[in-house]
Amino acid sequence: MTNGSNPRAGAAPLNRVERRKAQTRKKLINAARAMLADDTAPQASVQEITEAADVGFGSFYNHFSSKPELFEAAVADVLDELGELLDQLSVDVEDPALSFAQSLRLTLRLCRGRPEISAVLIRHGMNYMESQQGLAPRALRDIRAGMAAGRFRAADPRLARAAVAGALLATLQLALTDPDLVDDSACDQLAEQMLRMLGTPYDEAHALAYAPLPVAELPEPE
Amino acid sequence: MTNGSNPRAGAAPLNRVERRKAQTRKKLINAARAMLADDTAPQASVQEITEAADVGFGSFYNHFSSKPELFEAAVADVLDELGELLDQLSVDVEDPALSFAQSLRLTLRLCRGRPEISAVLIRHGMNYMESQQGLAPRALRDIRAGMAAGRFRAADPRLARAAVAGALLATLQLALTDPDLVDDSACDQLAEQMLRMLGTPYDEAHALAYAPLPVAELPEPE
Repeated sequence: MTNGSNPRAGAAPLNRVERRKAQTRKKLINAARAMLADDTAPQASVQEITEAADVGFGSFYNHFSSKPELFEAAVADVLDELGELLDQLSVDVEDPALSFAQSLRLTLRLCRGRPEISAVLIRHGMNYMESQQGLAPRALRDIRAGMAAGRFRAADPRLARAAVAGALLATLQLALTDPDLVDDSACDQLAEQMLRMLGTPYDEAHALAYAPLPVAELPEPE
Repeated sequence: MTNGSNPRAGAAPLNRVERRKAQTRKKLINAARAMLADDTAPQASVQEITEAADVGFGSFYNHFSSKPELFEAAVADVLDELGELLDQLSVDVEDPALSFAQSLRLTLRLCRGRPEISAVLIRHGMNYMESQQGLAPRALRDIRAGMAAGRFRAADPRLARAAVAGALLATLQLALTDPDLVDDSACDQLAEQMLRMLGTPYDEAHALAYAPLPVAELPEPE
């Protein structure tokens, strides 16, 4: 488990006021996540957001200086949550190519099961491709590790990450418009294709992309 | 040259009224393209658009029900033009894998030279991934031809097209934010990676992605 999304991890326990404040922030972020998903975010007023979050109007500005700042925090929250889960699940996986394939397959599966998260990622993911938080730094780390271990061919890792990110987002888009086409096997097929793209030999790419997967579930929004 | 973008091809010649109507539509689309190009589209009023197009205010609504509809038609027009150009340039290329690589490399290079087109594609391209016009049907045709000829490995062609489209759009996005990173060699690297993804043997993928390219230029908007 990384500390990436929780600046308080390892710090002293929160007192009552701090706990309350963190709860309010979380409520606002969850409301924003729901609005991003159903595309009501662009028109939503601060009043509507605080009502949906069930917090006082004034408390919005204790946490965020503007609506865009809240919505950015909400996208980052989704990506952090996903990234932490993937890190936990691959902590014992030694082979970076296997770890990469597993994370990609799980991301596709998890997002397929949560269309509201997919919708947020499709709409905003391109802007987070080079983010310092969430999935982006983890993907770069895994691609670099694979190249260093000779499991992937040498190439520019940021360009490779962009290609993977784009392919992932486009597949999520297809999963929203044509859910039957993007089944579990399609997720594994994309993982195999991405491994080949990165330079894993063809027979190995197939075996890695169809290896058994750990059980994974994203927490429901509170 | 395909007939994909011209529903009238092969039909009876247009009469005077129809010709006039087609001209007005084309003028509106060209004005919209210019506005997309210099990024004045979001704020433009219908009045400003019809003035820039040099057509009567009322004629706008004979062709389009709203500004977004016009701008969508303008994006489709860009994609059609690009698709027709790529088709012309690959008409003598026998190998579908070479034709695919050439079209991908040229698309990246042409869009890199026209950031206003890149910006439009990044913003709207995901919605045109399965379009019946423009680049989407051509990409599907090339991927299917490559699979039929045994140059690509069998896989779902729509899923493969989505992965290619996403990787292309993400690379264009990177080219906008970090133009130095996405140079000609980066375009060729992506083509090689996409060929490997599709299943072309590694040494062949390299040769195809670095083959000489025909000279290509997109016409400037009229």
